[in-house]
Amino acid sequence: MSLTESSAFEIASAASLASRRLAILSNAERNEALTALHRGLLDNKGNILEANARDVATANLAAENGTLNYSVLKRLDLSKPGKFDDMLLGILSVRDLKDPIGNVTLKTLLDDGLTLERVSCPIGVLLIIFEARPEVIANIAALSIKSGNSAILKGGKESTESFVAISRVICEVLSKTRVPKSAIQLVQTRDAISSLLAQEALIDLVIPRGSNDLVRFVKDNTKIPVLGHADGLCSAYVHHDADLDIAVQVILDSKTDYPAACNSLETLLVHENVLQSILPFIAKALLAKGVTLRCDEPSKNALINTLGAAEVASIVDAVDSDYDTEFLDLILAVKTIPASSSNSDVEAAISHIETHSSKHTDVIITKSRVTADYFMKSINSAGVFWNASTRFADGMRYGFGTEVGISTNKIHSRGPVGLEGLTIYKYLVRGNGHRAGNYFDGEGGKQWRHEALPL
Amino acid sequence: MSLTESSAFEIASAASLASRRLAILSNAERNEALTALHRGLLDNKGNILEANARDVATANLAAENGTLNYSVLKRLDLSKPGKFDDMLLGILSVRDLKDPIGNVTLKTLLDDGLTLERVSCPIGVLLIIFEARPEVIANIAALSIKSGNSAILKGGKESTESFVAISRVICEVLSKTRVPKSAIQLVQTRDAISSLLAQEALIDLVIPRGSNDLVRFVKDNTKIPVLGHADGLCSAYVHHDADLDIAVQVILDSKTDYPAACNSLETLLVHENVLQSILPFIAKALLAKGVTLRCDEPSKNALINTLGAAEVASIVDAVDSDYDTEFLDLILAVKTIPASSSNSDVEAAISHIETHSSKHTDVIITKSRVTADYFMKSINSAGVFWNASTRFADGMRYGFGTEVGISTNKIHSRGPVGLEGLTIYKYLVRGNGHRAGNYFDGEGGKQWRHEALPL
Repeated sequence: MSLTESSAFEIASAASLASRRLAILSNAERNEALTALHRGLLDNKGNILEANARDVATANLAAENGTLNYSVLKRLDLSKPGKFDDMLLGILSVRDLKDPIGNVTLKTLLDDGLTLERVSCPIGVLLIIFEARPEVIANIAALSIKSGNSAILKGGKESTESFVAISRVICEVLSKTRVPKSAIQLVQTRDAISSLLAQEALIDLVIPRGSNDLVRFVKDNTKIPVLGHADGLCSAYVHHDADLDIAVQVILDSKTDYPAACNSLETLLVHENVLQSILPFIAKALLAKGVTLRCDEPSKNALINTLGAAEVASIVDAVDSDYDTEFLDLILAVKTIPASSSNSDVEAAISHIETHSSKHTDVIITKSRVTADYFMKSINSAGVFWNASTRFADGMRYGFGTEVGISTNKIHSRGPVGLEGLTIYKYLVRGNGHRAGNYFDGEGGKQWRHEALPL
Repeated sequence: MSLTESSAFEIASAASLASRRLAILSNAERNEALTALHRGLLDNKGNILEANARDVATANLAAENGTLNYSVLKRLDLSKPGKFDDMLLGILSVRDLKDPIGNVTLKTLLDDGLTLERVSCPIGVLLIIFEARPEVIANIAALSIKSGNSAILKGGKESTESFVAISRVICEVLSKTRVPKSAIQLVQTRDAISSLLAQEALIDLVIPRGSNDLVRFVKDNTKIPVLGHADGLCSAYVHHDADLDIAVQVILDSKTDYPAACNSLETLLVHENVLQSILPFIAKALLAKGVTLRCDEPSKNALINTLGAAEVASIVDAVDSDYDTEFLDLILAVKTIPASSSNSDVEAAISHIETHSSKHTDVIITKSRVTADYFMKSINSAGVFWNASTRFADGMRYGFGTEVGISTNKIHSRGPVGLEGLTIYKYLVRGNGHRAGNYFDGEGGKQWRHEALPL
């Protein structure tokens, strides 16, 4: 065991121990810690913003030298109007959510004096790896404490100073509450990731928040379950009976509201019959916002026939890989769904999506509830939408208060993951010396009652 | 891509396609397939039992030659009284369970004309790898079809003939129903496992059912999430206030009802104060059933002082590794929890369990509800029991109808996994051309309604 591995083991062991203490705290005790955390960060706003300003200055230099992306710089800055206050408000809104722990979701009388209960409980120890955004620290600390989980937070190097300032406040604040200090540990060393990812006996869930590369690296390098999404390859299918206005509104918002987000649209599937009637209006609206369209031949031909020469300049030929690309930019891949009998048209769109989408969020634009229902039943993505923008796929917009991230996993938790996704359940059995061996068919055997009890 | 890999890819692709067709079938259509499956297996009972007899004969030879364990032989035999009928009944009881698909568990009015629903849905494609028990094929096929999942089943070489006979019936039967034939695929080639485990883009969940070695092999060789348990290291703690009779009944049943099961007791923790009063009675009952006790010094001394010489012969010194061993046999590790202040005694027991147990099922024997509650809150295992045998940790006993296995995972599904564990959910949003960009604070921005709607 190298020095780093042994320290990762120590960190994870301390987190595991803390998770046991956290598990027996009441909601009131966890909430008190969140109130204190809010107070502490408010009182230290000055220090934290100064530290953040140093990170921003360093990042500014790096951006000027071309060694850092300007979008990272943007995410880093905590001094933007409202950002710090939103971070503080987020802590209070998490505090005020319903307690996710101790909820009984199943209660069965197995036999006289023998009951079974399924009760929600914390998962245990979370490892959260993120990149630039320093406000994530407060957000995740709040979600972890509220859900009774220990968290190990590993930040990116760009936010080092902010990270140190915020973590100092968290440590100080927690030491005066019932939440053990090791419940939230902040790890800064760059080489710590691999050794933390090796602690599968002690860490229960990894949540990477950052670039696709980060998520992929994490997925490829750990046996711990990973909650998150590498890609957000969202598609929209415009059916032959789509409402023109709805199609334009939804596609425009899905693509241009915030192109760098994972819930932005990357592929547009258009039914052959509406290439001339609906697609040109969608294209005009997108082109006016500076979107480049990467079209297959039928859709390109339709647009060349209907649009002006200036507009056609932003229409290029699609290559196969465009339909597997998350552009995260003002680029949209367009593909034609050939007309045949009406049911198999939807089938072709579904087939494209099931093959190419990343199971994040996919949309159908149609007037038909039957067609929409068929699409929504068939597509196995975290979000399947009808006549609404992909951009609604978001924890705040769903009304979850906040989210720890968006998951494209197909087990445990999908889509925007809130407090509930950070919990699991355990089965509690209470008896009075009951022996399982007494229950059997035949003479002398006891029979099960298996009566559902009110929750 | 080797030939095997390409065939694994084809199998997984076919399963993925079938899962889409399966997802749109109604409960009635899935149930019809289960009725047909039941009928088909009943009609072919003769063939299947003949095939099974050939497997048993081969296994008998292997067992006599010492190349096969007799317990495998026992599991293989479908002709044991009641076994075939139980298998058939299992299909009907799964059929008659509540539809796990399409249940709306959350419904929110996001804004006028914009609703969010969370609906239960199949996971997609399951890969189930099992060893000897041929009845698992029917069981898993039923659970998969009922939950709308495609399943790829890989059986062990001992059950080859039974497997071929049953799979022929399943194929024939399904071809006459709405369930696509590729929804249940049975793979026999021995070298197929590794290539199937590599299909993480198409297979959503692996469920290994068999020896610890099999489970560990699977966990170490795939990026697909694995549902199952490698170890069932269950512990019981006898507190100083335990009821003597309850302690004896529960420990005896937990250890001796079926020692080879994963929910059998492997470690007994005894409070120092009851080493002389309760432990001897537990020990007498266990020794009378042929259990060997591996004791630490205080517990051994207590037993030597209280038991007769003949009994003491089955008491040996424990070594450290005994507390991390799943004996699956008539052997029990015994450890003393030293007396101090009463709260920290439980804490020491909890600490031992959290360090050594495999998070399967752990028990406390105490008269105190407060102590039991503290223990049940602190221990993060799939099952935490009070005054009841570990052997109750079982899907049938919990009233789930049947189980696909027992999970010691800390996410998705824990303990006995029934139909619900084979489902996940998706979020459906229905709008009317809604744009997310229209919702913001300040002038002209729309506000969220976020009203919970009745389910």
